[in-house]
Amino acid sequence: MKVDVVRNILEANDAVAAELNARLTAKGILTLNLMSSPGSGKTTLLERTLTDLKHEFCMAVIEGDCQTENDARRVAATGAQAIQINTDGGCHLDGAMVREACAKLKLDEVDILVIENVGNLVCPAEFSVGEDYKVTILSVTEGDDKPEKYPFIFAQSQVMILNKIDLLPYVNFSVERASSFACAVNPAIQIFPLSATTGQGMDAWYAWLRTERDKKRL
Amino acid sequence: MKVDVVRNILEANDAVAAELNARLTAKGILTLNLMSSPGSGKTTLLERTLTDLKHEFCMAVIEGDCQTENDARRVAATGAQAIQINTDGGCHLDGAMVREACAKLKLDEVDILVIENVGNLVCPAEFSVGEDYKVTILSVTEGDDKPEKYPFIFAQSQVMILNKIDLLPYVNFSVERASSFACAVNPAIQIFPLSATTGQGMDAWYAWLRTERDKKRL
Repeated sequence: MKVDVVRNILEANDAVAAELNARLTAKGILTLNLMSSPGSGKTTLLERTLTDLKHEFCMAVIEGDCQTENDARRVAATGAQAIQINTDGGCHLDGAMVREACAKLKLDEVDILVIENVGNLVCPAEFSVGEDYKVTILSVTEGDDKPEKYPFIFAQSQVMILNKIDLLPYVNFSVERASSFACAVNPAIQIFPLSATTGQGMDAWYAWLRTERDKKRL
Repeated sequence: MKVDVVRNILEANDAVAAELNARLTAKGILTLNLMSSPGSGKTTLLERTLTDLKHEFCMAVIEGDCQTENDARRVAATGAQAIQINTDGGCHLDGAMVREACAKLKLDEVDILVIENVGNLVCPAEFSVGEDYKVTILSVTEGDDKPEKYPFIFAQSQVMILNKIDLLPYVNFSVERASSFACAVNPAIQIFPLSATTGQGMDAWYAWLRTERDKKRL
């Protein structure tokens, strides 16, 4: 009974997400679902990306959080369109929430839409939200074993960003081990070690965004 | 329909957890539900605590993870009893899982039982697992805004451990701000800033354990 209900919820969500992705694709928008644990640096990565690429792309952001509008405010300060979704304790975004938020955005001018999910390395992996790609951040302070211990989200992701590499000298973290664990669950995953705080390594991430946005261009 | 199912699941779990807590209390065991984001240092805190207090208390650990038995192995290396639960993608432990794990432990000799939950700052807050107290770790690399953005877990916890204070010089984190956000959602919460890696601040945590264990003594 419980399993059936969960399966029905997931299938209904997949249908909503697929329809939303088709609409966004028809507008030529590259859509990313940005996921990580709380505090891995999703919003800081976005702030820097939005600022550095603001003359190149029109970007919009949908912010998911249990509570507060802090992240939408931080993102809006860069000049980008930003909408906050508060899940009021909910552990992930779903397609219907994102569809509702999209209705409030001026999508005709948008090149790249980033959906920042609730901070959670488990539940968001199961719920598509209309994205082309899932991008998961792991920060080096969390330990290099996380792709092995939380394999589902890395298996679903096209990109793993290894954030906070400026802190590598102070923590016990091997980029090689983390990459090897991630590749074991997902051999095709692309990995970008970077620091959203210092800017180190951001160029490779920007190059990936440009390539993927070009593929969506109408 | 979905809401009813969720409510029924939570109520059924509360009943299992209450019955389990009564059994553990009857044995004089102090039981803690240790929660945090992935990589906040739950297992490192346990390794140090088990090692430092091994001649004072008999401690047992139930380890919850999506995958791998790594944490149970790390904990068992200290000499403590350790059982691993793999949730296979499940985002939290529940009372029935912990009850099953308890059946495999020699509880008659145990003073303190620690249940290390799946790394997740959202879902475990809703599911009691037979504990006397919930203890939530926030590491300073995650940002001082987390008790405001993920208030539910901090509202439910009797203790917030601020871990990795050895990294404070390298990150933008205010212990005062984090404490103030936590107290706003839970004025009674006890806060222990410490580093499970260097050992700084562990004494206050150990003193709390001693006091709470004394209250449970038969």
